[in-house]
Order: sequence, then structure tokens, then C-alpha cells
Amino acid sequence: MSKEYLSSQSYKGTRDFFPKDKRLHRWMFDQMGKVVTSYGYEEYDGPMLEPFELYAAKTGEEIVNQQLYTLIDRGERKLAIRPEMTPTLARMVAQKIQELARPIRWYSVPNVWRYERPQRGRLREHWQLNVDVLGGETAFADAEIFHLVYDLITAFGGEKFISIRINHRNLTNCFFKDSLGLSPELALQLAKSIDAREKIGEEKYQAWIKDLGINDDQQKQMEVFFESSFDDIKRNYSCSGISDLDALFENLKNFPINSQIIFDPKVMRGMNYYTGVVFEVYDTCAENRRAMFGGGRYDDLLGLFGNTRLSGIGFGMGDVTLQHFLEVHKLLPQFQSAIDVFVTFPKQEFAQKAQEIVIDLRQKGFTVITPLEIGSFSQQLKVADKHEAHFAVLLGEQELAQNKVVIKNLKEGSQCAIDIVQVSDFLKGKCKSCQKIF
Amino acid sequence: MSKEYLSSQSYKGTRDFFPKDKRLHRWMFDQMGKVVTSYGYEEYDGPMLEPFELYAAKTGEEIVNQQLYTLIDRGERKLAIRPEMTPTLARMVAQKIQELARPIRWYSVPNVWRYERPQRGRLREHWQLNVDVLGGETAFADAEIFHLVYDLITAFGGEKFISIRINHRNLTNCFFKDSLGLSPELALQLAKSIDAREKIGEEKYQAWIKDLGINDDQQKQMEVFFESSFDDIKRNYSCSGISDLDALFENLKNFPINSQIIFDPKVMRGMNYYTGVVFEVYDTCAENRRAMFGGGRYDDLLGLFGNTRLSGIGFGMGDVTLQHFLEVHKLLPQFQSAIDVFVTFPKQEFAQKAQEIVIDLRQKGFTVITPLEIGSFSQQLKVADKHEAHFAVLLGEQELAQNKVVIKNLKEGSQCAIDIVQVSDFLKGKCKSCQKIF
Repeated sequence: MSKEYLSSQSYKGTRDFFPKDKRLHRWMFDQMGKVVTSYGYEEYDGPMLEPFELYAAKTGEEIVNQQLYTLIDRGERKLAIRPEMTPTLARMVAQKIQELARPIRWYSVPNVWRYERPQRGRLREHWQLNVDVLGGETAFADAEIFHLVYDLITAFGGEKFISIRINHRNLTNCFFKDSLGLSPELALQLAKSIDAREKIGEEKYQAWIKDLGINDDQQKQMEVFFESSFDDIKRNYSCSGISDLDALFENLKNFPINSQIIFDPKVMRGMNYYTGVVFEVYDTCAENRRAMFGGGRYDDLLGLFGNTRLSGIGFGMGDVTLQHFLEVHKLLPQFQSAIDVFVTFPKQEFAQKAQEIVIDLRQKGFTVITPLEIGSFSQQLKVADKHEAHFAVLLGEQELAQNKVVIKNLKEGSQCAIDIVQVSDFLKGKCKSCQKIF
Repeated sequence: MSKEYLSSQSYKGTRDFFPKDKRLHRWMFDQMGKVVTSYGYEEYDGPMLEPFELYAAKTGEEIVNQQLYTLIDRGERKLAIRPEMTPTLARMVAQKIQELARPIRWYSVPNVWRYERPQRGRLREHWQLNVDVLGGETAFADAEIFHLVYDLITAFGGEKFISIRINHRNLTNCFFKDSLGLSPELALQLAKSIDAREKIGEEKYQAWIKDLGINDDQQKQMEVFFESSFDDIKRNYSCSGISDLDALFENLKNFPINSQIIFDPKVMRGMNYYTGVVFEVYDTCAENRRAMFGGGRYDDLLGLFGNTRLSGIGFGMGDVTLQHFLEVHKLLPQFQSAIDVFVTFPKQEFAQKAQEIVIDLRQKGFTVITPLEIGSFSQQLKVADKHEAHFAVLLGEQELAQNKVVIKNLKEGSQCAIDIVQVSDFLKGKCKSCQKIF
């Protein structure tokens, strides 16, 4: 009888996290958690599924029309798997807007889903640190976010390899409208093409903007605008975003890596809800030059839920890009096995003694495993090695008669007979004397 | 112009975790993580979406036909949001079966989804500690799982309030087949009705088994069987599961709460993949008597993915039920605000000094927030109170001239002038002397 087996591979564009992968993942997010917690950001979370309308409003056409995972539940409700966390944040803040202490500083580490063609740095499921502050004065809140981004990268030792490129949505919109004379709809399309320029290459970009009806004169103006310094912009344009940026740059005067904070009018960001400062964090190294993550300020997002207005700024830092950055720059630590002690189990009649030792060591904070079967020392030491345990406790007849056990240091190969009551002190290095056995 | 607003409520049957909720949630899973880690279980994780077929095979008809969230992706692939974690575990283990060190001890904390009518203890999305051990001798591995369950409950102080009810699938199947003469299909249906008996009540249960065609004689045999002690069973039946249970009870002889480990032939568990020991952990208190969580042994799950056999036992411990248990028994701690220090910001010209203090305190491990706007002390202390900060640092002109700041203990109301360089020592309680200000 032939049988059809299921594939043991995960769904395309997703990852299985085996313990080694999960240890790295957890380490990355623990590091981030420490930094954002020191800034007083509190963790929140929301459901994986949200009503479809939550994204339809402001998330942007590409995601909603091409990348969203949607489904109809058994009650005929149209739902979406979250492609990003900000709409959930806005919904939750709107729900308790009256009682939440401001400024509201929240973070979360959601998994988010987008239907993408899997490629380097782009998967269908990824995890993302989301950090947002709502309330407070714009320039102070914006500056806090940039300090936080810097401290996050510094926590991983990566601060030498990045720059933060800053722009302002109002400046872009004002240029598109006043200088180029574009309609809001066309301006949005043009912004998408500029956002994609680096990724799709110059040829496709040129074709795209031709398609949009951008003429040579407009294109010339764009090239001048995109290469302008902030001082040029201040001289030649008058848009309200300029004063926001002015106040922000004033607050960032003492920024640790001021030379790496760059005004860049080409920065667009995909989300439709951004209204103020937008930014992207770049890896500046030649072999990995790319936007790693970014964010921006949104003034009107809470207005979706009622007659409320509360401005916020936030960003999302994805695990795939960060891990790649840490690998490229050799910033990942060597992880050790978490198994401190392997207690052997050579005979059924030692079961109770073994169990007592195991319980005692666990209570004293050690991670302890057993082989879950009876076997010879040589068999069981192989198992201990496979688990990369640091020590093995060997229960021998002769030693047990003297209330002793043999402890083997599996890294060094040395072994000692130790009184059972002294095992934990010995493992902690408090007790050095032992009867060596070779 | 009228505008239609979106609801700020989460999708039915799901929860928003505001920071207070998330703190409790994280605390629960951190406690669990410590216990399972001390046993050497390593964390793994898998994607939220899996191929539909992964559950169609063995998860059970009720879940697959009535409760699964399914969707078709843009590549016409039928997917399901995971309703449980064990199939993902089995898939991952099958994928690397040759290289994984045995016994394989893994845990995970996935969110899982089922389309249920939301009610007390049952939501559409919940989180679940999943613990599994694969490999090792059955009776030792089973015993380890029961020790682990006990230690998990003990970590929350709940060990006095539980019992663990144990049964064996083979015993049930053997009774249904040999004593009642039922077909495997009918046996499965009957097991569902017994599983549901407590929940649906006696009347519906009786109607259900009548519907299944169970006659009076069979029903009498069932009632005798279900009330049997393990010794009765051993005398009157010969099924292979009995020797498994015998070996397990022998290994549990020294169990801390032996009187609370109960053989109960009524325990069924819903999953079709169980083949050996099954168990349920009960809250024994009269006002909350119910099955809280459970698990069991599966021998054939890896066989779905190839010609492989590796037996495992595991359980899932859900957050909703656990939280309810901890609330009922008053086992939840009082959580303190995580904000150590609120640094006031009374004037723009103090901005740099304030920033220096903030950075210094964060580097020394304090959680520090600022108001992100300029304001009077009285305004800002109100903000500090709303955030439940422990201390406020007040930057006053006079004190700054002497390189001092005022520190207010917001819990006690006392305040002191302190040299700026001594602020962190003072907050840590190392430095007691201060110039009191009233």
C-alpha cells in the first residue's frame, strides 16, 4: 500500500525556529526590550486578525491590494492577518484615549504577514519591534525616537555602520503640489516610484515616472530638489514642514552621531498615514548599503475611530533585516548550550537517588537533564555530549556507598568524586577540592 | 458631512493587551519559561499559517470542520491558522529527525486560533505553553512530564488546588472494542461524547449515546468501567496500556502530591493523535471544579511525514484558564509601575542638562521618562503621578547653579536636594544624606 506523506517543510516564505534559531531570535528581542524599557516604553499586544477595514483606510494600496492575507470567518466577517502593527496601536489608543497617561510610550513585538515573493530580507512572516510615542511636543518626541533608534543599534554594537536619513511628508507634498503642480493622487503615485527607485533600478524608475506623465521640466526640478541640502531647501521653499525639521535638528544638536543624521528629501516611506517626519535607517557599508528600517509621524490615524486627534511617531524594526545586518558586521555572539548538568541513569535502583539530585540542582538554579532511559556510562556520556551539557553527574555503586558521585567536566574532560551535598557548590566553583579520578 | 468611524474594539473573541494586561501575560509566561528551562526544555517556534492538510489528518473533526480558520493564498494554496501547536512540532521534528539530540525536549508559547462561541475560558485567540518530550523510555518520559506539570503549578503557588487525572488511550480503545464490541469509528464518536459529558450535562450526554446506538447493557458496562479503580481494571481487563500505566505509577511513587494523581478512565482528550497516556489537570476547589489543561502521548504523529516513528508526550497550558485559576485562588502578584524616574523639563535652556541626567540614569539601569514638553513643576508632577513614577527629578534654577537637583519621592511625598553626580546612588538607596526641602 503506498502512502502519501505530508511535506515537513514550512509554508513558503516562513521560517521554522529550531531551538538554535529561537535562541538568537529571543536574544535579539531581549536586547531591544532592555533599551526600550529603559526609555519607559511599555509592552502591548493585539490580536493577529483584525477587521479588513482597519487596513483598507490608510495602510497603502500595494499592501492592501497585493499583499494582504484576508479571510472570511464563519460569521461572514472579512478579516485580515495584520501586515503591520500601527493600525492596531491606533485602534487601541483610540479605545482608551481618555484614560491613558500621556505621552503614551508603547512597544510591541508582533509577527506580521505580507504576501511577497520570498527573497533576501523579505519573507511572508516576520517579526518586528514596533515603538511608538503619542502626545508631547513634536520636536521633542521626534528627537526621543532618534535617540532610541541610536541606542537600539548601539546595544548591538552597530552604531558605526548606520546613518539615519530624515525627510518630512509635508515638505514632499508641498513640493509636489506647489512646485510641480501635481494632484494629490498623482503625488502619491510619484512618491511610490521614488520610494521604489533604489530597489527597481534607474531604467524602470524612469519608465514609471514617464508613465505617470512627469515631463522633462518637472523631472529636472525633482533632481535639483532631491539633491538639495536642508539649507538650500530653507532658502528656496516655504513649507510648514521646514519649521518642524528646524526644531528637530535643533534638538538633535548633541546627538552622538550627528554626522550620521542626514536630511534626505528622497526618503518617502510606503504608508499613506504618515504626515510629518519620516526616516530610514541605512547600513552605510558599501557591501550592504540599504534601508534597513524606518518610520514616521502620523497626525490623523486616530481620527479613523472618532472625532479624536493625537499625533504620534513610531517605527518598526524587522528581525530578518536586523539579523542580516548583525551577521554582515559580525555582531552576533556565540551562544552556549543552556544545559548545565546531565545526570546519568545507569540502573533502575539508583532512580530515586538520581531524582533527588536532579530536583536539588534544579531548585538551586541549574538546568538539568536526564537521559530518560537506563544505559551504560559510555552510552549516556555520548548523549550528554550531543546535548552539549557542561557537566555530567555519574552515579556509580562504589561512590554512592560513600554518599559521593563523580562529576565530569565535559568541556575539559576532567572528573572528580564529590560528596553529594557538595555537588551544587562544586558546580558553582565555590568548592575546588575534589578527589581526582582519571 | 457625516463620516463613518471604524470600531475601536478588537475582533470578537480576541483580546487587546494594554500594558497592564501584557505585564501580567508576560509574567505568567516568564514564570513558566523558568520552570521548563530548568528541565532543559528549549524554546522553538513555527509559522502562524500552516498547510491545511497538517490538521486535516489527525487534529480531530470538530476542530477541522467547525473551528479552523482557513484561507486560500494568492497562489491558490489552502492554509490554516494554527489551532494547536503539536502538528507544527511534529513537522519540525520530522524535518531534522536525524540530527536532533534525543530525548528532544522542546517548548513554545504560540498563539492559537479556533472559531468558538466566545464564553468564559474560551476565546478565539489564546496563548498556550506547549511542552513536549520525544524519545526516551515511555514511563520515564511520562513521569518527567507529570513532575514538570507539578512544578509549573507550584511556581504559581497553586499546587494545593489541583489534581492530575490520568488515563490511557489503549485502555479506552481496548474496552470499547473487546468489552463493548464497538467499531473504531463508533468508539471515536463515543469518546467525544464522554469527553463532553461534564460540559454538556447528563441529559444531553444520555441523548447523544442513545443516538450512537449504545444499548442498556453497554451503558451499564461503561458505568462500571468508568468508576473502576486501577486495581479493579488490572483484575478485570487485559490491555497493553495497563503495563504502561503500571510502570508510570511505579515511577511516580515519590511524587510530591501522590494523593492528587488519580487514575480516571473517563479522561478522553479531544485529539485523534493520542495513543498512550492522556491526562487532565483539574482545579479541585468546589467553586471552580473543572479541567484546566491536559495532554497526552502520541506514537504515530511523525509517521505523517515519512517512514519514521518517534513517540512523544506533551501538553498545552492555556493563558485564559491559567489566569482565571490564579485570580480565583488569589495567586496574582501586585505589579508595580516600571517607571523609576520622571525627569521634569521646566525650561528650554535646561534641555541639555536634563538630557545628560536622563542618559546617565538610563545607562545606570533606571527606567527614565520625560514629559516631552515644557511646563511648570506642578503640571509635570501631575504627569509623573499619572505614570506612577517612583521618583521625580526637578531641575530648578537655584539648585542647578550649585550642580544640584531636587528629587521627589512620589510615593512618600518627601523631597531632597542632591548633587547631580550623586543622583543614581541616592535613587539606589546607597546615599542617605540629603538636604531636606519641604
